Amino acid sequence: MRLLLLQLNPVIGDLPGNADRIRQGVVSAGPGSADLVLTPELALTGYPPRDLLLFRAFIGKVRQAAEELAADLEGYPPVLAGAALPNPSPVGRPLQNVALLLRDGKVVRSFGKTLLPTYDVFDEDRYFEPSRGPQVLELAGTKMGISICEDIWNDTDFWNQKRYHSDPIQELVAAGARCLVNISASPFTAGKQLLREKMLSGIARKYRIPLVYVNQVGGNDDLVFDGRSCAFSATGGLTARAAPFAEDRLAVEIAGETPGEVHPDDFTPESEIWHALVLGTRDYVRKSGFRQVLLGLSGGIDSSLVAAIAAGALGRENVLGVLMPSPFSSGGSVADARALAGNLGIRTAELPIRGIMGAFEETLAGEFAGMPRDITEENLQARIRGTLLMALSNKFGSLLLSTGNKSEIAVGYCTLYGDMNGALAVIADVPKTMVYRIARWLNARGPAPVIPEAVFQKAPSAELRPDQTDQDTLPPYDLLDEILRHHIEEHESAAEIVARGFDPAVVYRVAHLVKGAEFKRRQAPPGIKVTDRAFGTGWRMPLAARAWDLPPGT
Amino acid sequence: MRLLLLQLNPVIGDLPGNADRIRQGVVSAGPGSADLVLTPELALTGYPPRDLLLFRAFIGKVRQAAEELAADLEGYPPVLAGAALPNPSPVGRPLQNVALLLRDGKVVRSFGKTLLPTYDVFDEDRYFEPSRGPQVLELAGTKMGISICEDIWNDTDFWNQKRYHSDPIQELVAAGARCLVNISASPFTAGKQLLREKMLSGIARKYRIPLVYVNQVGGNDDLVFDGRSCAFSATGGLTARAAPFAEDRLAVEIAGETPGEVHPDDFTPESEIWHALVLGTRDYVRKSGFRQVLLGLSGGIDSSLVAAIAAGALGRENVLGVLMPSPFSSGGSVADARALAGNLGIRTAELPIRGIMGAFEETLAGEFAGMPRDITEENLQARIRGTLLMALSNKFGSLLLSTGNKSEIAVGYCTLYGDMNGALAVIADVPKTMVYRIARWLNARGPAPVIPEAVFQKAPSAELRPDQTDQDTLPPYDLLDEILRHHIEEHESAAEIVARGFDPAVVYRVAHLVKGAEFKRRQAPPGIKVTDRAFGTGWRMPLAARAWDLPPGT
Repeated sequence: MRLLLLQLNPVIGDLPGNADRIRQGVVSAGPGSADLVLTPELALTGYPPRDLLLFRAFIGKVRQAAEELAADLEGYPPVLAGAALPNPSPVGRPLQNVALLLRDGKVVRSFGKTLLPTYDVFDEDRYFEPSRGPQVLELAGTKMGISICEDIWNDTDFWNQKRYHSDPIQELVAAGARCLVNISASPFTAGKQLLREKMLSGIARKYRIPLVYVNQVGGNDDLVFDGRSCAFSATGGLTARAAPFAEDRLAVEIAGETPGEVHPDDFTPESEIWHALVLGTRDYVRKSGFRQVLLGLSGGIDSSLVAAIAAGALGRENVLGVLMPSPFSSGGSVADARALAGNLGIRTAELPIRGIMGAFEETLAGEFAGMPRDITEENLQARIRGTLLMALSNKFGSLLLSTGNKSEIAVGYCTLYGDMNGALAVIADVPKTMVYRIARWLNARGPAPVIPEAVFQKAPSAELRPDQTDQDTLPPYDLLDEILRHHIEEHESAAEIVARGFDPAVVYRVAHLVKGAEFKRRQAPPGIKVTDRAFGTGWRMPLAARAWDLPPGT
Repeated sequence: MRLLLLQLNPVIGDLPGNADRIRQGVVSAGPGSADLVLTPELALTGYPPRDLLLFRAFIGKVRQAAEELAADLEGYPPVLAGAALPNPSPVGRPLQNVALLLRDGKVVRSFGKTLLPTYDVFDEDRYFEPSRGPQVLELAGTKMGISICEDIWNDTDFWNQKRYHSDPIQELVAAGARCLVNISASPFTAGKQLLREKMLSGIARKYRIPLVYVNQVGGNDDLVFDGRSCAFSATGGLTARAAPFAEDRLAVEIAGETPGEVHPDDFTPESEIWHALVLGTRDYVRKSGFRQVLLGLSGGIDSSLVAAIAAGALGRENVLGVLMPSPFSSGGSVADARALAGNLGIRTAELPIRGIMGAFEETLAGEFAGMPRDITEENLQARIRGTLLMALSNKFGSLLLSTGNKSEIAVGYCTLYGDMNGALAVIADVPKTMVYRIARWLNARGPAPVIPEAVFQKAPSAELRPDQTDQDTLPPYDLLDEILRHHIEEHESAAEIVARGFDPAVVYRVAHLVKGAEFKRRQAPPGIKVTDRAFGTGWRMPLAARAWDLPPGT
């Protein structure tokens, strides 16, 4: 039994294009290349299609695309293609998330998804009616158990807590499956592939049958899919793995222990996150129809790293770095930004903001008469810069990247309509300490360091008033990031974090800042998710709410 | 059997405050006032608590608040209080959405919600495990069937399509219930109360038993709850109804046809939407901890209406209107804005933007050399204004309201980081034609017209270049709004709308504009939902997606 796994990078909504990706994958492998070809989950629509699914006409076009694809592939091996179709019952949610079997020129059968993730970034109960009962496909004398993504994530032995009442994999095995197939669209987070492989290997070993897993690849808005489709033998051994963060095809022979191709990979967090951000940025920009990007270069570590990611994603010729010094900018910052741009080979523009600052202050002088300078004037500088960047974006048709990191976005150390401006917040889910780690990793990777050493050495600063540093306002970043991880990724309250031994004053202040910044994050650009809990679609907080997580006695 | 319905306006997350609201409602009615007191759904947390529910410590505090409330109310009638508690089973979603029975100083029983809305703005499958089986409460010799909100929205006879496989109301009646109780948090949309009453009346009549419905009231972010708690006799007659858009208490005697208090109401769309926007604005501002607001006044209909809403919500002394004329502003616009502010009695500030425009153009002159003026310079004006408004907001601690209507937000006729700036987009779900209707209704309501007649008479214009009008770029608003209603509220494709007889060129252009503006809406402030489909939490579209809704032949 030979399977061909197509690890595809679909464009959301691009039904003809996505069908073409499948078609080309099958045709170029040839008529006799496999007994069955597998695509990722929802390969025709791309994952996640979100509310495109609510358009009945869109679903009609999905069905049509599947039928045309089946007809085009007559004479080739059967294909199991991910799609969304109407729920045939008049009761229940409107759709089903299915794997369609295309064979002999026709759509001959549909296998439905049973477990519908509705947590974090996932909303599948919004759209899909669950399938019920095991679905076995007999092909070339082998009974294959077909499952879709989440169906394989509820193993009784692997998890302490189970979100669902059934285990579709157990049911498939009980129904006689001698091989497990899972088509997925499983988003990247750092370290997730090791978890996937451990879980998948355990399931193969537990049931003593081979298991094949095909994953989507590519960036779709806030989600990056890392690919890494893989196969396991009946003893749980990894027998094949496709490339990380790139389209790939993987041929898998599921009889016996014959090892297939195992693509080399690097599971260190810095490497994984770097590659995820590069792919996520490239795909967001290109799938949005852009070729060029711009960003503000402050000479700090955040914008330096984002510039390097952008150059890696799109080519240095497609990146413009904009220096916008104010009277509060240090000479070092401008020099560091220029040096970084030189190292990367990207173009720069320099637009000092002193004149515009003066014009705003003059216009506002009457209203502000007699009032002291405060955060208003700091925000004003950030907003002038954000407006200049958008003017360049509009005039030259290039997409603006914002450069804020997760730590500062968490505590609101950023200006809405200012440095938060942008179509994509590249490192919005990367904590500040990880920003430094990735930058170090990048410099060490060679051939030559990219980010000037001075950028690492100076104290982080917004440079919005004289001699300002981030640590005037915030706890040290290593401490802040640890508190934030407990609070954001683990949903621990301040009291729970204090119970871990952290300073109560710091913890309650951080929790207070996080809550106070919800209104900014609601209007933030999408960021690229790399942790277990990113702000954005997986973080849905009320705005006009009372704080409940208060120090004892308040 | 006497029931007391507490139609409460909770603050999200404010467990002590929300418990107090219940406590005061019960205590002020007195120990012998009723056989049972009812609160809205999730009255302790406020609805919707969203991801606050993911904090285990928060849920612990909910339980504690319920137990303290029960103890405080010993000696008073039993209370059925909406709350969220952990799912006691190790399998399934983490929580249950429950009505807790507080009696004799203790929490004695919990009634769970069976049907969990997960569509439009609702995400309950994200948090809650469904309850199973009917839950009857026997009290004072009467068996009452307890249900929560969505449980009553799946009647087999009322709906053609059913989203759920069970009908909890039918099961309650089969289990012997002689009275139906539904505790709700059902958001307002225009016309919804008439639908509710028709459905509830039909259910009472069908089963020949009385029905009591208690709803939350107040604004919580994008949602407004209109209250209008009500009761129906066993023949389906409306026997009582609480106030619209205000906290209220309603005493209901469920034996016989005894009519209770039916609060007068006005179901005309203009009146309903006006009151929803006033309440939504007031609650958003106050629950966010603000007292004062500001907004830009252009002399157009949108900002005029928003200013009137703000004055109605917060008092004229708490509203600042900011005029920011440019060289492209007509004299009439400035005069109209001043006249409006005079009619409302709100304060104004005038900040001409010519000087700042000059400073930006000078700074950008080098980069823009040789390039023609285009949309860049138009956006620049909007962003200068947005930045000035934010400077005033920062300096004076008042909240910025944005003034865009649904029609322009739909087609992207607005500037991100410009006129889209604000903490709340008051009329973001009001189509332009309805903006005019509400403005006319407001002027007619008296005592004197508020919005100057000239504002109605002039052609809508962004005034960002000489002699510009909206209809240079957009179809007439009555046509645009009709197309948008089909496309946004009904999820009809362009082809389906064309099939209704609309001009294909116009329809496909509108669909193209709507798709192209998704990236702006992702960063828009929350708007107040008044239609069946608002942008925001109920409209979840991919950004970097390919258009699928194209003219034939493309």
